Amino acid sequence: MAALTAPDRNPKPDRNPKQDRSRATRQRLLEAAVSCLAEHGWAGSTVAVVAERAGVSRGAAQHHFPTREDLFTAAVEYVAEERSQALRALPSDNREQAVSGIVDLYTGPLFRAALHLWVAAANEDQLRDRVAELEARVGRESHRIAVEVLGADESRPGVRETVQGLLDMARGLGLATLLTDDRARRERVVSQWARLVNEALTG
Amino acid sequence: MAALTAPDRNPKPDRNPKQDRSRATRQRLLEAAVSCLAEHGWAGSTVAVVAERAGVSRGAAQHHFPTREDLFTAAVEYVAEERSQALRALPSDNREQAVSGIVDLYTGPLFRAALHLWVAAANEDQLRDRVAELEARVGRESHRIAVEVLGADESRPGVRETVQGLLDMARGLGLATLLTDDRARRERVVSQWARLVNEALTG
Repeated sequence: MAALTAPDRNPKPDRNPKQDRSRATRQRLLEAAVSCLAEHGWAGSTVAVVAERAGVSRGAAQHHFPTREDLFTAAVEYVAEERSQALRALPSDNREQAVSGIVDLYTGPLFRAALHLWVAAANEDQLRDRVAELEARVGRESHRIAVEVLGADESRPGVRETVQGLLDMARGLGLATLLTDDRARRERVVSQWARLVNEALTG
Repeated sequence: MAALTAPDRNPKPDRNPKQDRSRATRQRLLEAAVSCLAEHGWAGSTVAVVAERAGVSRGAAQHHFPTREDLFTAAVEYVAEERSQALRALPSDNREQAVSGIVDLYTGPLFRAALHLWVAAANEDQLRDRVAELEARVGRESHRIAVEVLGADESRPGVRETVQGLLDMARGLGLATLLTDDRARRERVVSQWARLVNEALTG
């Protein structure tokens, strides 16, 4: 209401065009980094390739992300936030549909990008600790949201591990979809596991 | 008995010292290739590095495996055969123990080597089709053995998908163990899902 009754005051005092441009550049770089990782893997993903893809100068890219590791861990953190938002938006009134929605989030290009960084981190000293910390944080957050969406009561024995195993299965299905179109098989597996999870959570 | 009663005849007419040496060299190269992939990933794995590690000349390595792709797909096929043998050796009289044994086979250095090749293949044209074909074949074989070891009756609806989902979960757990020691969490997840899978298969 304040903005309507006082039209002469700046309605967004915390933003200005320069900051907006900077945010938009950062966003374009993150999105380009995600696509680049998903399509070319870690070996084919450099700051220069991403800057060109985003239509941003290399200097501007390095202003936002001083190192290759900064850029790609930020990109995977961005992916994780997108996934968390999508998880929160899943229907919480139909558990089998929620299971299927959770798996979908691990089998698309966002997961593919994260997978490439994850595997590269196993052999890159500059990446390992950062990605391990990021994945642990993201894993806890995904678990927390999945518990909510599934309406799971974690005070009951076994419920916590049922949900964790479901997320592990979703990651395994994401891996299976990397080289071939695994959709038909996946749908049958998910439909059966959705039943198992529903029974286990209803108990 | 023939070898004992006729000691002047060659007891192993299909083998000779030269063939034995060649087999031993091939075996050493495959084992070195697996360790190399597990420790350094695809980017750090070349024929030269593997030959040196195996104590074999680069020429001899290239005699056995003309290209880098030949060497590493053969190495992952070798890993898959080791895993199939280990799967067959699991106890078939205790289903929950069998589930835990199956997961163990996806969380060690053999799986880690296969994972690196798998992920690299997503972005390498020379690898993609070969690794996709190999993984499809290995996946079917692992599934077949898991069904046997679990004593699962695939004529019942949902049983096939229950076992497939379990193998997908095992792969997801293998991925989770890549950057951190995930053993304590994994044991709790596996123990819970061993119960759920047992119930689903007993039905």
